Amino acid sequence: MSVEAVMKETSLDHESRAIEGDHDALRLWLRMLTCTSLIETEIRARMRTTFRCTLPRFDLMAQLARHPEGLKMGEISRRLMVTGGNVTGITDQLVKEALVTREALANDRRAYLVKLTPAGRKAFQCMAQEHEQWVADLLGTLPEHGRRELHELLGDLKNGLARKHPEH
Amino acid sequence: MSVEAVMKETSLDHESRAIEGDHDALRLWLRMLTCTSLIETEIRARMRTTFRCTLPRFDLMAQLARHPEGLKMGEISRRLMVTGGNVTGITDQLVKEALVTREALANDRRAYLVKLTPAGRKAFQCMAQEHEQWVADLLGTLPEHGRRELHELLGDLKNGLARKHPEH
Repeated sequence: MSVEAVMKETSLDHESRAIEGDHDALRLWLRMLTCTSLIETEIRARMRTTFRCTLPRFDLMAQLARHPEGLKMGEISRRLMVTGGNVTGITDQLVKEALVTREALANDRRAYLVKLTPAGRKAFQCMAQEHEQWVADLLGTLPEHGRRELHELLGDLKNGLARKHPEH
Repeated sequence: MSVEAVMKETSLDHESRAIEGDHDALRLWLRMLTCTSLIETEIRARMRTTFRCTLPRFDLMAQLARHPEGLKMGEISRRLMVTGGNVTGITDQLVKEALVTREALANDRRAYLVKLTPAGRKAFQCMAQEHEQWVADLLGTLPEHGRRELHELLGDLKNGLARKHPEH
């Protein structure tokens, strides 16, 4: 499904929520959400069509690719902000397809260490390469200087958010 | 939970996924995802703490607030990109709390029209006001000219994405 089709069919356009008198920060936030959702929806669709792969599965493999020494199930859950149940389900499937191994740790019987197999690493690299092309394609709608400016502004925002200590 | 705590505990920082040699577009995309996730996670937490309200529930009420004439269940699902099941569950709960009404349509017995009650409208307005303050607070970490630039760049990106007709 094209980005345009998604926008038309689903009102994924969060900006349509903004009504007159709304604060400019709210408009900015809804626009951020819209852009992120559009790109994510498109990547999700391409990942499904091209590799029959979900985004959580891709993200889990990406975490394992970054940690050749392996990750504990609990660490993967924390990194992916999903429930332990989801991580277990995805990992079960990946083990079945021989893309990851799951070994009990000698010093902690309740903990399991998960690693990509060589086949899993190869499969991930192939998907990651395509994924990068898709992202370049989608963000390439902005000229290079625009992308650089956007990167800097979002860097300032990210740092500002990290410095914040909300009272809540 | 503060934004900082979220970043520390969960590696919500998608940029940590970027490894050397990655395309600049990928870095930009991961930074966008990081900023969006940080803000969304914070808003979700404040919504829960302050109003015991989930984001999907708030979004559903926001859609109804924009459509005083009412929305069909199917329309709400499409607008929220969630399954019909979720919309049904949230609507059931809102009906129970007398914040929305759900009436069968005369010309289509299988379709239901959902509307905010006056109490529902008041409850939503109260939450929306707070929500706007939170967003202003979180995005206020950027100076005004930065927010304006960001708004423009994301507008260009959004237009570029909408013009795109990917072959996939």
